[in-house]
Amino acid sequence: MPSAAKFKQYASLRMPKYRQKYGLFTVEGRKVVDEVIHSRAKLEAVMASESYASKQALPETCEIISDADMKRLSQFETAPGIMAVVLMPSAQAWQDQAPLTLAVDGLADPGNLGTLIRLADWYGMTQVLASEDTVDQYNPKCLAASMGSFLRVEVVYVHLAEVLKNKRVFGAYLEGTSLYDAPFEAPSVLLIGSESHGIRIGEELENLHRFTIPRLGQAESLNAAMAAGISLDNAVRRLRERGVAKFALPFNK
Amino acid sequence: MPSAAKFKQYASLRMPKYRQKYGLFTVEGRKVVDEVIHSRAKLEAVMASESYASKQALPETCEIISDADMKRLSQFETAPGIMAVVLMPSAQAWQDQAPLTLAVDGLADPGNLGTLIRLADWYGMTQVLASEDTVDQYNPKCLAASMGSFLRVEVVYVHLAEVLKNKRVFGAYLEGTSLYDAPFEAPSVLLIGSESHGIRIGEELENLHRFTIPRLGQAESLNAAMAAGISLDNAVRRLRERGVAKFALPFNK
Repeated sequence: MPSAAKFKQYASLRMPKYRQKYGLFTVEGRKVVDEVIHSRAKLEAVMASESYASKQALPETCEIISDADMKRLSQFETAPGIMAVVLMPSAQAWQDQAPLTLAVDGLADPGNLGTLIRLADWYGMTQVLASEDTVDQYNPKCLAASMGSFLRVEVVYVHLAEVLKNKRVFGAYLEGTSLYDAPFEAPSVLLIGSESHGIRIGEELENLHRFTIPRLGQAESLNAAMAAGISLDNAVRRLRERGVAKFALPFNK
Repeated sequence: MPSAAKFKQYASLRMPKYRQKYGLFTVEGRKVVDEVIHSRAKLEAVMASESYASKQALPETCEIISDADMKRLSQFETAPGIMAVVLMPSAQAWQDQAPLTLAVDGLADPGNLGTLIRLADWYGMTQVLASEDTVDQYNPKCLAASMGSFLRVEVVYVHLAEVLKNKRVFGAYLEGTSLYDAPFEAPSVLLIGSESHGIRIGEELENLHRFTIPRLGQAESLNAAMAAGISLDNAVRRLRERGVAKFALPFNK
């Protein structure tokens, strides 16, 4: 049973500033708790509610707390009943020589960021670059939407305009040359704008190629994560054609 | 001011069965209300709450109702304050000679269906084929996620296994041959499974090509709408290469 002080600390982790302060975040639900237990992530605590514990076999080192306490700690309207408190991995520098990096400028929706992290993981990438005002990667909705990919893909928050100033950047715009002609080469950065403001740092980039996903119909735009997925698939294909080993197709696929 | 009977009817439109019974659905918020007013959709009523009307210029034929009444009618936790009641267009048959049709087998999440409708609209398609148990296209979350594309793309609900039995179908699976080698030709159907069960009707299809989006990393799967977007972009490209005029790139793109 966590001490009262620990308990108060865990409850504060709903708020991004306390997650940052303590270097801790929570995950909830059996699937993701099992995933963090079996990952290299460092755990501070695993807790289950009394009613959860009365119905389910528990992981090895799991403390039992009252249902009321779990409700106080949970970030969800209906608490799943099992929770892990996880230490944030130490922040890494951006590997700017990676053949391709996905970057986001001001993404605000945690579901979109989580979907994008899952996408990056599918394509074998381990980092996503983000402006400092992008939504927190440890937001519970972001963790949920990433479907476990947050364990393999880290979001690196930086002053985006400064870091990308001289890099080869391909930015997704509503007006630009065709994505299908974009001359991706390694290393490249694929930059996606926010849901409401698009890319804000275009003027500050010295080597920016503005592309658009050609539109055949009348939708005003595509969802940010969707635009990222379609663009990333095209970028990876182009880099594969250029012989970038990282993106060679796995055997029999 | 709607009659008490009309009012009761409108309030019932939260539930899919009453939307079907009356052939009506609601949209809320100024942007989408303006869109339906300027579209070919037939409107039964446009209503604004008193407090909305006190702050905003109203569309021409707009009735004012009390804030409490708007709260009763609204499908959202916080009522946007302006609402239109719209007649469902009459159901159309599937145009099975379209060069490419996007089909979904049991999609359950309204946000995913809305995102997929927006995607279909972007690529110039006017229909999406869906199994009868797919979530309702007039679900408010689906309408919101479609960002207005519901006015141009119609979901055609059918007995999917029966309708697709002899068609050339390309199904998105976690195991299959590479999407990049899939021999799309017109007409083809691109079939996406549900979030939790994937494609359920595979055994009943006589001309099914199982493909997978090659996975380079470790994510277990991709979100259904995301998988649809990446697959659709590839299918459209292949059909363009085969000279299908519908998918020729617009000038200067």
